[in-house]
Amino acid sequence: MNSSETASPVTVIGLGLMGRALAGAFLKAGHPTTVWNRTPAKADPLVAEGARRAPTVDDALTAAPLTVLCLTDYQAVRELLDASDADLGRTTLLNLTSGSSAQAREAARRAERRGARYLDGAIMAIPSTIGTADALVLHSGPRPDFDAHEATLGALGTVTHLGEDHGLASLYDAAGLTMMWSVLNAWLQGTALLRTAGVDAAAFAPFARQMAAGVAEWLPGHAEQIDSGSFPAEVSALETDARAMEHLIEESEAAGINAELPRLIRAMAERAIAAGHGGEQYPVLIEEFAKPGP
Amino acid sequence: MNSSETASPVTVIGLGLMGRALAGAFLKAGHPTTVWNRTPAKADPLVAEGARRAPTVDDALTAAPLTVLCLTDYQAVRELLDASDADLGRTTLLNLTSGSSAQAREAARRAERRGARYLDGAIMAIPSTIGTADALVLHSGPRPDFDAHEATLGALGTVTHLGEDHGLASLYDAAGLTMMWSVLNAWLQGTALLRTAGVDAAAFAPFARQMAAGVAEWLPGHAEQIDSGSFPAEVSALETDARAMEHLIEESEAAGINAELPRLIRAMAERAIAAGHGGEQYPVLIEEFAKPGP
Repeated sequence: MNSSETASPVTVIGLGLMGRALAGAFLKAGHPTTVWNRTPAKADPLVAEGARRAPTVDDALTAAPLTVLCLTDYQAVRELLDASDADLGRTTLLNLTSGSSAQAREAARRAERRGARYLDGAIMAIPSTIGTADALVLHSGPRPDFDAHEATLGALGTVTHLGEDHGLASLYDAAGLTMMWSVLNAWLQGTALLRTAGVDAAAFAPFARQMAAGVAEWLPGHAEQIDSGSFPAEVSALETDARAMEHLIEESEAAGINAELPRLIRAMAERAIAAGHGGEQYPVLIEEFAKPGP
Repeated sequence: MNSSETASPVTVIGLGLMGRALAGAFLKAGHPTTVWNRTPAKADPLVAEGARRAPTVDDALTAAPLTVLCLTDYQAVRELLDASDADLGRTTLLNLTSGSSAQAREAARRAERRGARYLDGAIMAIPSTIGTADALVLHSGPRPDFDAHEATLGALGTVTHLGEDHGLASLYDAAGLTMMWSVLNAWLQGTALLRTAGVDAAAFAPFARQMAAGVAEWLPGHAEQIDSGSFPAEVSALETDARAMEHLIEESEAAGINAELPRLIRAMAERAIAAGHGGEQYPVLIEEFAKPGP
């Protein structure tokens, strides 16, 4: 706590597994840390480590220039704010509760009507990594409010500001989770397939890791095609890819495993080909992803 | 060609874009290289670089101890072998034609009936990278036959032997392509979502790359859970993940973009939860991927 004279005070409201990790990281970095939880006993271990227990919600919402909310859902955030009529004009609320971009934008409007500055955030990390560079914490909302607290937030991990739109953190979160589960599902599909030939998961995993990491390297180049709206078949044309997609389905069906993922891969490509893009490169599928499915 | 006195001779049959790249890499590494193509003119540039043009299919199939086939499909391989009654007892056929594991196994049986040794392979690379370490070439079939030609094959890139089962190269190929298209589709889904909030593809790509590469690192650890058949929720329980999956669908639908990929992600997880695995960790979904879908 020897840096507490210079480190800015902070409050954490909501002491679930993640909230406790957040408060612990602030304490460890020397920030005078106030904590509050609906069930007060959850604060006990943090108080033992030096946190101050807020006696009331009003106190918790006004004790520090930065108030971090980490609750179950946005409904809980709304109820918390409605339970207090404290003047929020001297704090910035940072809402790290998981939710949708629409909920984030609405919460921002409500907070601003209460006179608070408001940032919305998303934590791309598990509790055990909070406080290390591996924990990525995304923020969106007014840049000056982020800048004012960036030094404090740095105690949590790698922090970034995505833009002024309060919905951006939730959108990046959703996009990141789509990436995460897609990599895992593709790996599970491949693992299921190879197990039918007696290959164990450990033998396939390094190959899968190499493929995923290798393809990830292509994304910035592919992004240029999307942003320019031009998709020349520099490496492969979609109609060539589509022939190989048939093999994915055949292999899965022949092996008696689930074939929904390969079928979706083919279906998206076939729609782009039907729309006249067979001679273009894979990123042209953005046009199919950008509209509702059939 | 100054190493040709020590480099082993090799033949390449099928001179499409990939076949020409293979022959070019062998030539560059100093291997006396025989080439053959149904349309003979395709061999002209290679002959100009020092390749020998086989006058007949019989000659092509018997000229070297290693004969690489790179044709349109397995039907073409079958027709080629049927067009010759040459004694194949002194060559190893390496079939790099794209196809299914069943086709590879059947081709192996046919080749063996003709007295040839047979390896099946898959090229995880684009023609322009052939001859560099970035080109991954997978082989399956009898290990001694791979070992006998490993030095020659090293001219093509990074070569590996997967196992004795001739179908393995095709299965790894299918699994690798599933990985590739899944990373690309997840990235397209996220890009489509973020574009609705004015974020361009180039801004999102580095984040997507980091997510995909980061998740790829988890695979060996997750593979241990699969091979042990035990899925403790060390990081997150499936039923917690499932709640976040709702957000992916909500965000996509609210943004008016395609929601089939997030819906498939949720559907797979829901089936595992319905089967009683909600308290276990994500890799338990292997049980859903390992059986036919509904």
